[in-house]
Amino acid sequence: MTRVVGKGIPYIDARKKATGQAMFADDYKFPNMLYVKFLRSPHPHARIVSIDTSRAEAHPGVRAVAIGRDLPLGFGVLPVSPDETAMAVEKVRYAGEIVAAVAGETEEAALEGVRLVEVRYEPIRAFLEPEDSLTECAPEEQIHEHCKNGTNIHKIASLRFNDPEAALEEAPHVRTLKFRFAGVTHAFTEPMATVATWNEDDGLVVISATQVPHYLHRTLSKILGLPLHRIRVIKPALGGGFGGKSDPFPHELITAHLAMKTGRPVKCRFSREEVFLNNHGRHPTDMTISVGCDDDGKIQALNADIVIDGGAFGSFGVVTTYYNGVLLQGPYRIDRFGFRTRRVYTNKPQCGAMRGHGAVNPRYAMEVTLDVLAHDLRIDPCDLRLGNFLPSNTLTVGQLRITSNGVKDCLLAVRERSDWDRRYGKLPFGRGLGVACGFYISGSALPIIWNRYPQTVVHLKLDFDGGVVVYSGASDIGQGSDTVLAQVVAETLGLPLERVHVKAADTRHTPVDLGSYSSRVTFMVGNAALKAAEKMKAEISRAVAREKKVPEDTIMFTNGRVVSEDGGLDLSWDDGVEIALAGRGALATSGWYISPKLGGDFKGAGAGLSPSYSFGAFISEVEVNPATGHVRVVKVWGAHDCGRALNPKAVEGQIEGCIHMGLGQALSEEMRYNAGHLLNSNFTDYRIPTALDTPEMDITIVESNDPEGPFGAKEAGEGPIHPVLPSIGNAVFDAVGVRMYELPITPDKVLAALKARKNAEQEQVS
Amino acid sequence: MTRVVGKGIPYIDARKKATGQAMFADDYKFPNMLYVKFLRSPHPHARIVSIDTSRAEAHPGVRAVAIGRDLPLGFGVLPVSPDETAMAVEKVRYAGEIVAAVAGETEEAALEGVRLVEVRYEPIRAFLEPEDSLTECAPEEQIHEHCKNGTNIHKIASLRFNDPEAALEEAPHVRTLKFRFAGVTHAFTEPMATVATWNEDDGLVVISATQVPHYLHRTLSKILGLPLHRIRVIKPALGGGFGGKSDPFPHELITAHLAMKTGRPVKCRFSREEVFLNNHGRHPTDMTISVGCDDDGKIQALNADIVIDGGAFGSFGVVTTYYNGVLLQGPYRIDRFGFRTRRVYTNKPQCGAMRGHGAVNPRYAMEVTLDVLAHDLRIDPCDLRLGNFLPSNTLTVGQLRITSNGVKDCLLAVRERSDWDRRYGKLPFGRGLGVACGFYISGSALPIIWNRYPQTVVHLKLDFDGGVVVYSGASDIGQGSDTVLAQVVAETLGLPLERVHVKAADTRHTPVDLGSYSSRVTFMVGNAALKAAEKMKAEISRAVAREKKVPEDTIMFTNGRVVSEDGGLDLSWDDGVEIALAGRGALATSGWYISPKLGGDFKGAGAGLSPSYSFGAFISEVEVNPATGHVRVVKVWGAHDCGRALNPKAVEGQIEGCIHMGLGQALSEEMRYNAGHLLNSNFTDYRIPTALDTPEMDITIVESNDPEGPFGAKEAGEGPIHPVLPSIGNAVFDAVGVRMYELPITPDKVLAALKARKNAEQEQVS
Repeated sequence: MTRVVGKGIPYIDARKKATGQAMFADDYKFPNMLYVKFLRSPHPHARIVSIDTSRAEAHPGVRAVAIGRDLPLGFGVLPVSPDETAMAVEKVRYAGEIVAAVAGETEEAALEGVRLVEVRYEPIRAFLEPEDSLTECAPEEQIHEHCKNGTNIHKIASLRFNDPEAALEEAPHVRTLKFRFAGVTHAFTEPMATVATWNEDDGLVVISATQVPHYLHRTLSKILGLPLHRIRVIKPALGGGFGGKSDPFPHELITAHLAMKTGRPVKCRFSREEVFLNNHGRHPTDMTISVGCDDDGKIQALNADIVIDGGAFGSFGVVTTYYNGVLLQGPYRIDRFGFRTRRVYTNKPQCGAMRGHGAVNPRYAMEVTLDVLAHDLRIDPCDLRLGNFLPSNTLTVGQLRITSNGVKDCLLAVRERSDWDRRYGKLPFGRGLGVACGFYISGSALPIIWNRYPQTVVHLKLDFDGGVVVYSGASDIGQGSDTVLAQVVAETLGLPLERVHVKAADTRHTPVDLGSYSSRVTFMVGNAALKAAEKMKAEISRAVAREKKVPEDTIMFTNGRVVSEDGGLDLSWDDGVEIALAGRGALATSGWYISPKLGGDFKGAGAGLSPSYSFGAFISEVEVNPATGHVRVVKVWGAHDCGRALNPKAVEGQIEGCIHMGLGQALSEEMRYNAGHLLNSNFTDYRIPTALDTPEMDITIVESNDPEGPFGAKEAGEGPIHPVLPSIGNAVFDAVGVRMYELPITPDKVLAALKARKNAEQEQVS
Repeated sequence: MTRVVGKGIPYIDARKKATGQAMFADDYKFPNMLYVKFLRSPHPHARIVSIDTSRAEAHPGVRAVAIGRDLPLGFGVLPVSPDETAMAVEKVRYAGEIVAAVAGETEEAALEGVRLVEVRYEPIRAFLEPEDSLTECAPEEQIHEHCKNGTNIHKIASLRFNDPEAALEEAPHVRTLKFRFAGVTHAFTEPMATVATWNEDDGLVVISATQVPHYLHRTLSKILGLPLHRIRVIKPALGGGFGGKSDPFPHELITAHLAMKTGRPVKCRFSREEVFLNNHGRHPTDMTISVGCDDDGKIQALNADIVIDGGAFGSFGVVTTYYNGVLLQGPYRIDRFGFRTRRVYTNKPQCGAMRGHGAVNPRYAMEVTLDVLAHDLRIDPCDLRLGNFLPSNTLTVGQLRITSNGVKDCLLAVRERSDWDRRYGKLPFGRGLGVACGFYISGSALPIIWNRYPQTVVHLKLDFDGGVVVYSGASDIGQGSDTVLAQVVAETLGLPLERVHVKAADTRHTPVDLGSYSSRVTFMVGNAALKAAEKMKAEISRAVAREKKVPEDTIMFTNGRVVSEDGGLDLSWDDGVEIALAGRGALATSGWYISPKLGGDFKGAGAGLSPSYSFGAFISEVEVNPATGHVRVVKVWGAHDCGRALNPKAVEGQIEGCIHMGLGQALSEEMRYNAGHLLNSNFTDYRIPTALDTPEMDITIVESNDPEGPFGAKEAGEGPIHPVLPSIGNAVFDAVGVRMYELPITPDKVLAALKARKNAEQEQVS
């Protein structure tokens, strides 16, 4: 029985955040601080003819001006895509790209300086639609020189297993459907902010709203030419990320550069408009999917052809390109399987990683297609899915290693709780139910930058005060990772949570963690923390056993005490600590996590993409107004297999957040452009769901107890988003009988589909 | 050959301090911060009849008021003297004691609140002269109830070895002289300041200008009733301490209490007047010393009777009481030796530890008495001293274990450099030379609070960036301990200094160190850092040896490289780190220092007061104006044996500082009272030497290479002060023929002595 793990404990920083005492990046103020503002390109694609900064530099409130030439090296979060520079050097690639930066005594002075920078541009043909980027163009029109075959194609990923095309020809039932997904962005609460200080004694210190202090650390070193050990990156309290703060960004590099140049602290904080222009959100996607099955609805084959619109730079795009295909090979058994994804550059703000990275749009396509097939075959969509699920402890055709798998329990739970069997297909016109499933990685087994280090390291310190300090590079971005680390350590040492202090995400003091992306933190950092705590326990046990003459292996840590199984030993934690520290003082232990090796056999070293996968099944109930086309999500039943819920309240929060975010992409969110100019860079025009749009939620946590997760845990922060969108799409079909192949499902699209269906029916009648 | 150790390197925080970027306690500002001000007693000794805080509490700018009853538990830096409370409870014991504290929105509001607190007192007989405190008084007049035999005697320390009284009767030459020393205070640059924050998530955080975060941590826990692990004490940049910040103080406890009471950050900063009222400076001392020697000037015996005026509370006084006697048993061989010291309470600000703690005044008495004896015997004062020095590797009669000892080299150096033999006794009237020697501890072998932990622990962290972080509780108070730790670690790992970062004196993150007092840091923390670095080296060596197939014991770390003796291996440090961290990530190592055990034989476990002792010899040249009585120190030749100078510039700075401080006590500094009221609580009336008073200084560092010190180092921060004062006193005698038995040697005293001598000569003549 656990005492701390498995409890719905408030986050260890909740009271600070609730009372306004938590320090976010923009809360840091230093004496003598400058402010930086940016000049951004007005053109989607143009050559820079000249930049004249002299008038800006002469402004009395301006302290420094920087342009592209000052920081000319290329970077990108993935070493394979170093295609971005801190500021545009020879040309601009999207309307909004930073061309110059001005540090001023006040924000007003910096803005005035920005207005005084004079840039002459020579516009080039802009590529705004992905289909245009697929074809050859004049070399001088290429967005990046390195693109293949004179096109603007950034990356092609293609894998095939067991000739899926042939399988589709053989299958008795096949559906080939086309889908289109608009680009969406993260819409986190806290705009980007960065504060940088520089002095010879401390070197460069960068406090930034980032999910990846480690990659920012490395990128600062490369771009500024400073050794890594002269740089310290601190992630303060963070107001949400969702992948949108998981790249090193130009504004971070520029702010650091200006701090070094001026010798003064420099602060950058984005307006909401700038956050939108920065983007790195989900790729707009065009997708054709073919799924074939037998008469019983058993899936025979899947093939997909996908084009994703990457915008002007690479970001995580190469990973997105693979994930779009690879993550179609579950949660169902599909032995003949293939995909091709092409990522293209366009002259728009770049796209990257966003919650559910790479799998959200393909999942919609797959789950809607399954729904169509179920309808074709008159098989209940739940039954069709139940007949196709992967089991536990198996390999997919593409060598994904599935260990624990609670997907069946998830589906049975939501089917039962939503009263599906009595209600699906039987609700009045305008009201419907839809089901969908999904699965997702618990961290990527491969680091972004190849190295010989573990995925993550956790250090613990225990001193005379009886407090344990956890040092971890993991970035709490609001998801509660600090709390989970404290819970894992407290549980292992049998301590109340208040005995455990977490110092996280400060590259000077915390061992490297790769960052908060791909749902890796609970699984990987949790395991490292568990190991460090077990070592600490062993150190204390050894000392107590020696001094108290009890067998070491009978000593247990529970309820703040150090006791032996037979009750002969019963020490307070503080007394145990006093014995353990006698003659050597404060203890330090280290734990780390290394992913199993890729490739090979399942029972041996076998691995695949991730060490473990989460699973889920969701059912949505919608109300569609046939007169207006408006879709309202009434209720969502969500069941997610997170292995073990280390903090059930946190897991519930993640599932609710996924429902909310999925709802937004499904029904209303969309990055809209005109001639390359973003039209809706604010929360009035970019419509995230409000509290009034929030449906009733019924959450079920399915605990499959992963054999390799810490206390059995897997991910919970991203996986629950995948089934949300198709469950809504499928529910719209159940409600009004039309299939929605494009997201967002806006009223105009619903009306158009209803009208088209009516026309088709009339044609059939006539 | 060393590359970093032994070099006169600028302090690692020097540039920050020089450019104003270092953060001192008063630089910390938090949103919503309150300010605390104190009501202080106008009476030296009085019963508190009543306190009415209602009007203060009703003031619109006041947020909280605290009085003695709120924090009634007794405390003191020594567990044997818990005789102080955060604020006066039933009575006040000195004029200036804190009676109430007010937290206000502004300093002005807090001051207004202080004015509105109404206190009624009933004065009691005040004890202002130590001789009054030696005798019995009415119980209700006792300053503390616990005083012995109805007196105000706080502590009596007395030790005798080999019947010194009998030896003095037998000795052919004996001098018994009386000395009197005024009280002096530290006069550090930075007034006390403390900022405290409290919230449920982080607990209590106290940022304070303290030399002893660890004792403050413990005292906060006791007085506030908070568990140790809920408290974090941070020592920021510090503007000098000299012992004056080495107790936990009432204002620190009160500030923390008010932060907890209000839930808001609270700042306290002292005015200079408050610093003086806080005091804890050197005890005013009355001393009778008898020294006997044979015809050759060989010392036969020493006996001393000492009364020290402790003021109202204990502070470090019990230690002072012992040190006053114990530290007379060197640097000369004295086999028949005794002393009695009585510390009394008086109704004045308390006295405690100050640079050279416990040995400055007795040293003056001893060295002047030796000068008198040398004059009696017509032996050169240098020769007399040379004939009496303790050797290296010996025990004193009181079991002080002397290891390295460079005192003879020190004396020979200053004798040579000052041209003593040609000039002593031969300068024109009004100009003279004086010599004196001294020795001091390198840390106390006993902790203040008995426990089973080491004296100090240092943790190191090494991560992929190739930087090493040193975690130490040691408090850099301006003496440069952070720099010395960085040097020791850099030297051991063969790194340039910039690769090493020091995180110090933050009780949450740094292993316990007992604090910066008794000159313990370089010796003890230096040893712990050395051991931690050697462990780090071993970890790297092992990994490199395994991977590169070279014998582990041939691997050396030098010049930022990892090489083998035969040159077959030559890796950059970063490559070595990459190998060492492969498969396990960031390394953590721990080193600690435990003093040798007290008692026993020298070659065995023998120890004594300190693990090692510094030695020194100084010669001063003065000019005395017989018309005005004014003494000007023209030049000081100082030689100090610090074992090995890890940073010669730092050692020189310490010696220069000791000359300056010694000069102040010798000639001008004095805490002056009228009826218990301090008269000169400012730098106009309390006269520390200015730059214009600073003599020419000729510094010699004698390196005796202590066998147990880190790289051979011993202390350098306190020992050099001891010989300064008597060398000036003795020089005055050489200049104008009068002995100065009272400090400071103010012009009026010189004139009086000259007049007395003239009268005596005239009497002899008549």
